[in-house]
Amino acid sequence: MSHKQQLIDQVIEAWRALQQQTPLVQCMTNSVANNYVANILLAAGASPAMIDNPFEAEDFTKISAALSINLGTPTTEQTQAMLISAQTAQQQQVPWVLDPVGYGAVLKWRSATVDQLLTFQPSIIRGNASEISTLAGSQIQSKGVDSTLNSHEVYAQAKSLLQYTECIAISGESDFIISKQFDAVIQVNGGCHLQPKITATGCALGALTAAYHAVSSPTIAALASHVHFAIAGKLAYEHAQTVGSFNVAFLDYVHMLDDNLIQQYVDIKIL
Amino acid sequence: MSHKQQLIDQVIEAWRALQQQTPLVQCMTNSVANNYVANILLAAGASPAMIDNPFEAEDFTKISAALSINLGTPTTEQTQAMLISAQTAQQQQVPWVLDPVGYGAVLKWRSATVDQLLTFQPSIIRGNASEISTLAGSQIQSKGVDSTLNSHEVYAQAKSLLQYTECIAISGESDFIISKQFDAVIQVNGGCHLQPKITATGCALGALTAAYHAVSSPTIAALASHVHFAIAGKLAYEHAQTVGSFNVAFLDYVHMLDDNLIQQYVDIKIL
Amino acid sequence: MSHKQQLIDQVIEAWRALQQQTPLVQCMTNSVANNYVANILLAAGASPAMIDNPFEAEDFTKISAALSINLGTPTTEQTQAMLISAQTAQQQQVPWVLDPVGYGAVLKWRSATVDQLLTFQPSIIRGNASEISTLAGSQIQSKGVDSTLNSHEVYAQAKSLLQYTECIAISGESDFIISKQFDAVIQVNGGCHLQPKITATGCALGALTAAYHAVSSPTIAALASHVHFAIAGKLAYEHAQTVGSFNVAFLDYVHMLDDNLIQQYVDIKIL
Repeated sequence: MSHKQQLIDQVIEAWRALQQQTPLVQCMTNSVANNYVANILLAAGASPAMIDNPFEAEDFTKISAALSINLGTPTTEQTQAMLISAQTAQQQQVPWVLDPVGYGAVLKWRSATVDQLLTFQPSIIRGNASEISTLAGSQIQSKGVDSTLNSHEVYAQAKSLLQYTECIAISGESDFIISKQFDAVIQVNGGCHLQPKITATGCALGALTAAYHAVSSPTIAALASHVHFAIAGKLAYEHAQTVGSFNVAFLDYVHMLDDNLIQQYVDIKIL
Repeated sequence: MSHKQQLIDQVIEAWRALQQQTPLVQCMTNSVANNYVANILLAAGASPAMIDNPFEAEDFTKISAALSINLGTPTTEQTQAMLISAQTAQQQQVPWVLDPVGYGAVLKWRSATVDQLLTFQPSIIRGNASEISTLAGSQIQSKGVDSTLNSHEVYAQAKSLLQYTECIAISGESDFIISKQFDAVIQVNGGCHLQPKITATGCALGALTAAYHAVSSPTIAALASHVHFAIAGKLAYEHAQTVGSFNVAFLDYVHMLDDNLIQQYVDIKIL
Repeated sequence: MSHKQQLIDQVIEAWRALQQQTPLVQCMTNSVANNYVANILLAAGASPAMIDNPFEAEDFTKISAALSINLGTPTTEQTQAMLISAQTAQQQQVPWVLDPVGYGAVLKWRSATVDQLLTFQPSIIRGNASEISTLAGSQIQSKGVDSTLNSHEVYAQAKSLLQYTECIAISGESDFIISKQFDAVIQVNGGCHLQPKITATGCALGALTAAYHAVSSPTIAALASHVHFAIAGKLAYEHAQTVGSFNVAFLDYVHMLDDNLIQQYVDIKIL
């Protein structure tokens, strides 16, 4: 298992690679999130493109450096496109991230799509505690698309998902990255309590994870994106304590993050 | 008829209940509004979920505390979902709010959908003066989706809509709440002239009305949401007089509203 | 050919006409852009309406003062609506602007739609350098939906597109307006390097061009919208140098622009 500073060095390296390569990231996300996701990815250094129709999905995935699939507000056409792109990503070895928004017993249609998508082996699965827990077989119910569980309650159980993927990332008050490569769980601290008050932060985190995955391994990608958000959230909250102003400051700090800030503020723990 | 302070007390009680219960609100809204609506509802204390496909509509409405339907940019699938959810809401007694965006002679397709939706008896109908006037049988034409009428010109005429619903809310320079329960019209003052310069404020107001309806009666829900916006708009304008900055401050004050601010700034009149 | 000050006078006149007439602009745009586009158009003085379904497209285009078509995230229904509205615009002489987002060899489906749309003779074609270059027959590949070319490299080649349209606008570090009317190219300077870091600024620029086209000729409309953005971008950057805060300030200045600011800050060159 890597030592902590080695992991931090790799996160910094991933951040640098993101700035240098500005990878093209195909984002299939929901209608609530897509503007925000695009702005977060641009601010972080990536080049997002929201191509999500079944007529262009295959061709576009082939030229993308990474793919992000988020099930927030699926339509029939978008679902078709997701299945095409996930299959293409698997065949062409394009790294891809699955965000199973709303997975559970109530939203059966999307959950069935998620089950199909899993067969195309996402490199990383990212979700909140309720989604990941349900995906790992729990019967606990989420409340709509927001989590009713804490992230620290589910990471042990979530390890069973490593049969489908290289890495699982669970966001919450603390985030947990479950790595097959390192056979370890990494806890990421930071952020602030206002983040869940802004819609689509989780969706943007999933897309940013895909962006980092274009330039690094699954574990380092998940770690880097969660550290990126944790630091930006913490610094933004120091400058703005109300939700509208915090949201503006958060985008500022997602953009202003650099290797010095990562080294100074990163707060991770290997479990 | 309730006295004014009784109404205010009930608004404050509704606000408290919203904070305590954070009700799950299913929002079927338009592609312009959905990010903004979700952020407003989160800031105000509710838990929004934008489930708007026909394959999940019924199951999701059944577990929702309230439903908001907004006709801004309907697609075939979304329209199917709206009809399913409205019917489910009626059958399961889930309170629901209808926002007939663009209702009128030009936009015939959505207007026909609105006519169908009315048969499922929304608890509250919310719109701008042009939409409500046309819905009440006037031949006056709106300009696109923005109103060409003033709210005070139409509230008398709008009473005919009480055959379909418990309460009608008309937004404008002053807002008017037409209550079947109290057999009265309540005027809500406040807000500021920049609000119509920000897209989807009306849509967000409709969704917030649904959120309040999860915890209070139709009249109090409509009154509380309009008071919430009127105060937040007034206070935001005191802090920011330009449209971009005002928009940020508005979200701040939607979040910061509390019982003291309501008591201090509420400006309503029973007509 | 007009002299420079004559052009500036016409830009100022167009801005005044936009404030006075608040034209209804039908925007068929992408799911990333639509909230931002609506807010930019409202701030600039226009009245946007995002009607993009095939069942209402024809009726709505007939009553619109201008039409903006943007191919960012097309669906089957939206594509049908675009073809209907473009044809209606041509028949009814409603001025319309085409923004061929992502045109090129990879995104074949939308590119075929763009080829069809061209037969309905848009008054103005607006895009980034990669899109316009590819549309003009170059084989150079764009990176996703962002440009890999500089605007000054392609304007000579872009003149061939005047067979389809009255005016071509290419956005970039400097913008270039290619006018059939004046048989000239006009360079617009201004803006700032943060603008490409905000998603949908190009899409909003296309829609604003349509808004100006409701009140002025193709060349003056394209010139006015690009000058509007160039000045707002320049002034916003003087007040905010980080991407989130800049975005807020940009909307402020789009709204605050007036004839004095145009006269003071306009920076154009007739080539």
